[in-house]
Amino acid sequence: MKVEMKERTIVDQYLKVRRFSESLSAHLEPEDCVIQTMPDISPTKWHLAHTTWLFETFILKAKVPNYQPFHPQYEYLFNSYYNSVGRQFFRPHRGHLSRPTVAEVNKYRQAIDQRMVELLQNCKEEDQPEARSLVELGLHHEQQHQELMVTDIKHVFSCNPLHPVYWNCPVLYADATPALTFKSFEKDVYWIGHEGEGFGYDNEFPRHEKLVHGFKIGSRLITNAEYMEFINDGGYTKSEFWLSDAWAMVNQQQWTAPLYWQKEGEEWFYFTLNGYVKVNPYTPVCHVSFYEADAYARWAGKRLPTEEEWEIAFRDDPIEGNFVESQCFSPLALNSQDIKKTQAYGDVWEWTGSPYVGYPGYKAAAGAIGEYNGKFMNNQRVLKGGSCATSQSHMRPTYRNFFFPEQRWQFMGIRLAEDL
Amino acid sequence: MKVEMKERTIVDQYLKVRRFSESLSAHLEPEDCVIQTMPDISPTKWHLAHTTWLFETFILKAKVPNYQPFHPQYEYLFNSYYNSVGRQFFRPHRGHLSRPTVAEVNKYRQAIDQRMVELLQNCKEEDQPEARSLVELGLHHEQQHQELMVTDIKHVFSCNPLHPVYWNCPVLYADATPALTFKSFEKDVYWIGHEGEGFGYDNEFPRHEKLVHGFKIGSRLITNAEYMEFINDGGYTKSEFWLSDAWAMVNQQQWTAPLYWQKEGEEWFYFTLNGYVKVNPYTPVCHVSFYEADAYARWAGKRLPTEEEWEIAFRDDPIEGNFVESQCFSPLALNSQDIKKTQAYGDVWEWTGSPYVGYPGYKAAAGAIGEYNGKFMNNQRVLKGGSCATSQSHMRPTYRNFFFPEQRWQFMGIRLAEDL
Amino acid sequence: MKVEMKERTIVDQYLKVRRFSESLSAHLEPEDCVIQTMPDISPTKWHLAHTTWLFETFILKAKVPNYQPFHPQYEYLFNSYYNSVGRQFFRPHRGHLSRPTVAEVNKYRQAIDQRMVELLQNCKEEDQPEARSLVELGLHHEQQHQELMVTDIKHVFSCNPLHPVYWNCPVLYADATPALTFKSFEKDVYWIGHEGEGFGYDNEFPRHEKLVHGFKIGSRLITNAEYMEFINDGGYTKSEFWLSDAWAMVNQQQWTAPLYWQKEGEEWFYFTLNGYVKVNPYTPVCHVSFYEADAYARWAGKRLPTEEEWEIAFRDDPIEGNFVESQCFSPLALNSQDIKKTQAYGDVWEWTGSPYVGYPGYKAAAGAIGEYNGKFMNNQRVLKGGSCATSQSHMRPTYRNFFFPEQRWQFMGIRLAEDL
Amino acid sequence: MKVEMKERTIVDQYLKVRRFSESLSAHLEPEDCVIQTMPDISPTKWHLAHTTWLFETFILKAKVPNYQPFHPQYEYLFNSYYNSVGRQFFRPHRGHLSRPTVAEVNKYRQAIDQRMVELLQNCKEEDQPEARSLVELGLHHEQQHQELMVTDIKHVFSCNPLHPVYWNCPVLYADATPALTFKSFEKDVYWIGHEGEGFGYDNEFPRHEKLVHGFKIGSRLITNAEYMEFINDGGYTKSEFWLSDAWAMVNQQQWTAPLYWQKEGEEWFYFTLNGYVKVNPYTPVCHVSFYEADAYARWAGKRLPTEEEWEIAFRDDPIEGNFVESQCFSPLALNSQDIKKTQAYGDVWEWTGSPYVGYPGYKAAAGAIGEYNGKFMNNQRVLKGGSCATSQSHMRPTYRNFFFPEQRWQFMGIRLAEDL
Repeated sequence: MKVEMKERTIVDQYLKVRRFSESLSAHLEPEDCVIQTMPDISPTKWHLAHTTWLFETFILKAKVPNYQPFHPQYEYLFNSYYNSVGRQFFRPHRGHLSRPTVAEVNKYRQAIDQRMVELLQNCKEEDQPEARSLVELGLHHEQQHQELMVTDIKHVFSCNPLHPVYWNCPVLYADATPALTFKSFEKDVYWIGHEGEGFGYDNEFPRHEKLVHGFKIGSRLITNAEYMEFINDGGYTKSEFWLSDAWAMVNQQQWTAPLYWQKEGEEWFYFTLNGYVKVNPYTPVCHVSFYEADAYARWAGKRLPTEEEWEIAFRDDPIEGNFVESQCFSPLALNSQDIKKTQAYGDVWEWTGSPYVGYPGYKAAAGAIGEYNGKFMNNQRVLKGGSCATSQSHMRPTYRNFFFPEQRWQFMGIRLAEDL
Repeated sequence: MKVEMKERTIVDQYLKVRRFSESLSAHLEPEDCVIQTMPDISPTKWHLAHTTWLFETFILKAKVPNYQPFHPQYEYLFNSYYNSVGRQFFRPHRGHLSRPTVAEVNKYRQAIDQRMVELLQNCKEEDQPEARSLVELGLHHEQQHQELMVTDIKHVFSCNPLHPVYWNCPVLYADATPALTFKSFEKDVYWIGHEGEGFGYDNEFPRHEKLVHGFKIGSRLITNAEYMEFINDGGYTKSEFWLSDAWAMVNQQQWTAPLYWQKEGEEWFYFTLNGYVKVNPYTPVCHVSFYEADAYARWAGKRLPTEEEWEIAFRDDPIEGNFVESQCFSPLALNSQDIKKTQAYGDVWEWTGSPYVGYPGYKAAAGAIGEYNGKFMNNQRVLKGGSCATSQSHMRPTYRNFFFPEQRWQFMGIRLAEDL
Repeated sequence: MKVEMKERTIVDQYLKVRRFSESLSAHLEPEDCVIQTMPDISPTKWHLAHTTWLFETFILKAKVPNYQPFHPQYEYLFNSYYNSVGRQFFRPHRGHLSRPTVAEVNKYRQAIDQRMVELLQNCKEEDQPEARSLVELGLHHEQQHQELMVTDIKHVFSCNPLHPVYWNCPVLYADATPALTFKSFEKDVYWIGHEGEGFGYDNEFPRHEKLVHGFKIGSRLITNAEYMEFINDGGYTKSEFWLSDAWAMVNQQQWTAPLYWQKEGEEWFYFTLNGYVKVNPYTPVCHVSFYEADAYARWAGKRLPTEEEWEIAFRDDPIEGNFVESQCFSPLALNSQDIKKTQAYGDVWEWTGSPYVGYPGYKAAAGAIGEYNGKFMNNQRVLKGGSCATSQSHMRPTYRNFFFPEQRWQFMGIRLAEDL
Repeated sequence: MKVEMKERTIVDQYLKVRRFSESLSAHLEPEDCVIQTMPDISPTKWHLAHTTWLFETFILKAKVPNYQPFHPQYEYLFNSYYNSVGRQFFRPHRGHLSRPTVAEVNKYRQAIDQRMVELLQNCKEEDQPEARSLVELGLHHEQQHQELMVTDIKHVFSCNPLHPVYWNCPVLYADATPALTFKSFEKDVYWIGHEGEGFGYDNEFPRHEKLVHGFKIGSRLITNAEYMEFINDGGYTKSEFWLSDAWAMVNQQQWTAPLYWQKEGEEWFYFTLNGYVKVNPYTPVCHVSFYEADAYARWAGKRLPTEEEWEIAFRDDPIEGNFVESQCFSPLALNSQDIKKTQAYGDVWEWTGSPYVGYPGYKAAAGAIGEYNGKFMNNQRVLKGGSCATSQSHMRPTYRNFFFPEQRWQFMGIRLAEDL
């Protein structure tokens, strides 16, 4: 979409992204769309409604004179966390709402889409840049929720002993993994952050100079086979590899492997959106927390890269890879001949060692939109590169994703680095 | 059903009860049937499946040679608490299961019904008494779950700010409530418990003699108007009316009224299955815990009856009233001319002061069926008389229902008593 | 004291009980007297102060004109649960108070004792009956807290890996346990409750007739050796012996033996106030919950007695045994020749199957004293007979102690019964 | 001590620091030394024992041939968090241990001191550098615990309605606060971290170059009067000033002011170690979390400094101020004429916006000592400058203290900064 954004009309772009949300839910039964299996996740129909509410609130309500909301209580039900807009329904209870039904949510989507298309088609020329900019933000927002629709339904299905299959995509087995090598970068002052052309969130600004010390970064992601060596070496039972908070978490939650892994006899299995199968040794390890990524790196005698190191290393790579468009919904293996492929984009989000804080000179946007990023700059770590649940058009080298160090339900993996 | 049980064939009875479960879920969308809003309640589709599983496990599996279960994992998913049968899916997570879908559960019901009908129709004459007895137990079990389907969906809908309506039944307003009078009973040794003819749970046996001291018992249930006097007198803020555990609960949960009541300005509203409306002053107070019933009685200078007192007072009344067959799903008011009506049966379960323990000489049934009642004889109180969600054919004077003293989501109300 | 109460002056009685509290704390360091290791227990110095506060509040404040409290905040700190007197310091935080120190609490005791003795010595003849009655209540209250001082410091010390010894009393080993036999009682109407002569709490009244069905009751307490058979037979791992709530507790708390027991290799040890030693097979099993007592009885094919059965069986026994006056602070074994000894009094409180509720016609006393018993009549079970931490003068056949079914830190044990 | 370290013998230094710990506990009763009022804090006697255990474990045990531990279980009781040394007694239960008593702990201290002095006096010349280095680490460790002894007893006393006074130091009232001005620093590459001469923790290394963008930093700390303006402006009720996690904490914990503040009528009071008094408007605001410091800065239109900005701004200031040596145990006010005083050192630790992570090239020390700092580099923020509970000899510009963003019980305050 990134490229097309400039070429296609904003209406086309709008409809394309909106339709994709619906296509993701097309694999599901109404019952699937209601469930919330932990506070972090939201029901599918909540995502479908919330993304719609964002367009209704920030565009229709703001731009259409005398706009009448589609339903007087949807703002309360579908506002996520915008305190400046109003009160929100208690997040951990989103799974307590059977109504509106999926069908009613789809009617809501259609009604708002119709109003949005009218608005955009009748937009005066002088208002078009602002409209385009707001729609772009809304579409990027919806793409983020498309990713969550995938990761959240994975969690929902994983809790069901019947192991429902979301989509039956054959995940090819590889013959061997290319050797892990390290590429060097010299100490220098680098420019970091978004250059200003094209879309970017406020947290990618301002572009600024940063003194980065010499480093080396891994040529590819860590595989399941490599991670299993850590497990087999007693990695989860030796405190010396773990941060103090991590060690408490490992013991409290009794972690012995990544999320969704289960040992049956001597064999590791895992739950994927394509079925419950034996762990594929060649695919990138996935559903590890920052704590596990960090412990793995320490065990391996390395460390995680910083977000700047990652950006410097991969900003000139083509933004290609196993994104959601491939409809695999699982990371894919490299083959022995894939020695040029870095896996930087797609497959799994890569944990960095960088705490998520504002860049020097960062200012949150004004108004409710300012709640989008800035208020989360606490106790989270930055991840880079997108995953198999991310839209390709949503990705760029300066993109800063962020999660708490104990979270694992996103497609998250490991790349190693070390000092030069 | 009680009467008909003897007259109609067991197959007819079986199908009638089974169809009624489905008719209760006919008012619902698939999304409604999945939700679990607190650990005490279960999703509608779980009730539909669990009642089916009971017939499959205790009859088909036991009686049909080489019986193949409908689905290998349904036993794990739909066993409620029979440890002697096997492990159970974690109860508070019943709302985490979107599959099997409602449609799949209905297929399960049809398949088991077909097998059951075949079994019963081909049952040899000498096996019929045992078959009839097992089916009767299964049908009484299903009637209990029909009641829970009603009370549980009420809780689910009550958590939704959209206030969904389950069934639109006009609840008539009354002109006045007949005066509350007290009927006296002399100290004597009475026979208590089930006589042996007709169906009864093991906890109603053995019939035994009990010395009951002289008592008086109220002529009707306490109304919302009467309970509001307690509220208005500061009942919820004065520790002297409350048991110690009750007072802790009132403060911890910040109770100020029965469950489902909400104050808007100066007016009390409540959520009912017929809509969210102003509290009807003439209908029996409902959704009060034992703690509230007991506190109300102390405030009123009375006490709750014991279970024996209730049984003695009302065992000769006709078992008529506002049961689930009336399709009101709410307790109904008396009118000024209803001075003969005791409201003993239907409307609301009546809290007694009696802790739920076994009668003298009680023995739990052998095998898994023995887990039905006996293991719950701890920290619960007995309730009598049935409610607007109970089947009329399910009720009898010796019936002992039991709930924890803090529970409120059943249709539960208050009748007063005092020493002679 | 029971006998002496009539013969000795009330001042003598007062001083004797008060001095005994202090003698119990004489074995302790100041540091020991501050600790609260779970919400159920209180620090030693809290007991010393609270019992003093009761005399100050209910006698001095009520009877001495213009009485000035010893300290303006002691009422807030040392009121236990009398809501009608005023607010109370948060019970689970009693261990957060280092001040007043033990020395200051002892000064408080001396000051109140001096005022009390003055009051009693100058009491007009016509006021003496009421004064005597209030003082008696206060002394029985203090004796209850003396028992808690013993059981609470046992819990405190048990949490310390250094296993401090409270008092070094040699607990004699026995040669063998007399055979367990059962004594029969016929069905009849019996008088139950306090006759009215001598002291009694309000919950022992009114004396009333009760129809008791024929029963048999065990000749002695269950021993550690007998309880170990239950453990060795997998008692803690088989759901069929346990009430549903009990089974949840066993699994949640991972109970595998009575409180204070610990397995080292193949050998069971337990923490006692006389040291950490191997479990004595001959002494009565102790520190079991109602849940464990009930499960043991079911495993043994028996049941627990009701409170009335216990009272009928042992009301004519002499009130003698291993009380706190023996200074053993642990239950003692019978020897093979002790075939006449019933162990009904002293050693351990005996769980009955009776839920703790008011007798027919029970009325709580008026005023703050009415909070003593009545408000606790919920979810508890009655225990009979007193323990090795109870004062002999505090005991009588009609005494009704009560604890929650999961509580274990009192000296609590098991006697069996069965239907005739 | 920093200066003296070089001049005085290591034995003198050792004894001086050790005696100071004891002098801090000299104001306390034995009962005070046992209490733990929240999991973060430790009882005084635990600090006295733990600091002793560190010398015993890392020096005596390591250096004295055939060393016999003073007590076989003290390692288990007094190891804080060194997993590589062994298991640790459960931290939140440190307040469950009445034994060893304070007197016994003091005997332990004396015994270890005697062994340490012998060891140091007989130390061969070639072993002296390593011995000195280990002792220095142990003494800095003990100084950290001296600070905790002060902050922890403050929390303990604050929970007691009797408001015990630790030490009666007259806190002078000021006439006015000097104006707050901002000093500018240009964008440049600066050297950050410890130069290598004198003692430093591993987290202050390696010294490295850092590109720091232009900034301005406040001339003094924020006062109580200034913070009250934030409160009075509804600061605690407006979500726009708060990080998302912070806002959740404010609402969950119902924060309305710094820790230890209490409103009586219209007046704010606070609990100090010198008594419970009216809030002094001139003294630096104290006992605020990072969340509150950050919200205050946002409300004021500024931000917190980064740790590098603070180090650059104040590294040339003399290390003087209100340290623990002044025996005030509370931050002190500036007067109108104190326009040159920066308050950078002493009074309160100053929150920076910098997450606590390792410097570029950081490596944790090998062995158990490596658990001192590195494993805590997660979810904490850096604080600079020391407080009124810190030893002056313990402080240096490169010192990096760290606490979780919600913690408030240390002496923590606010300095503002902004972009140039």
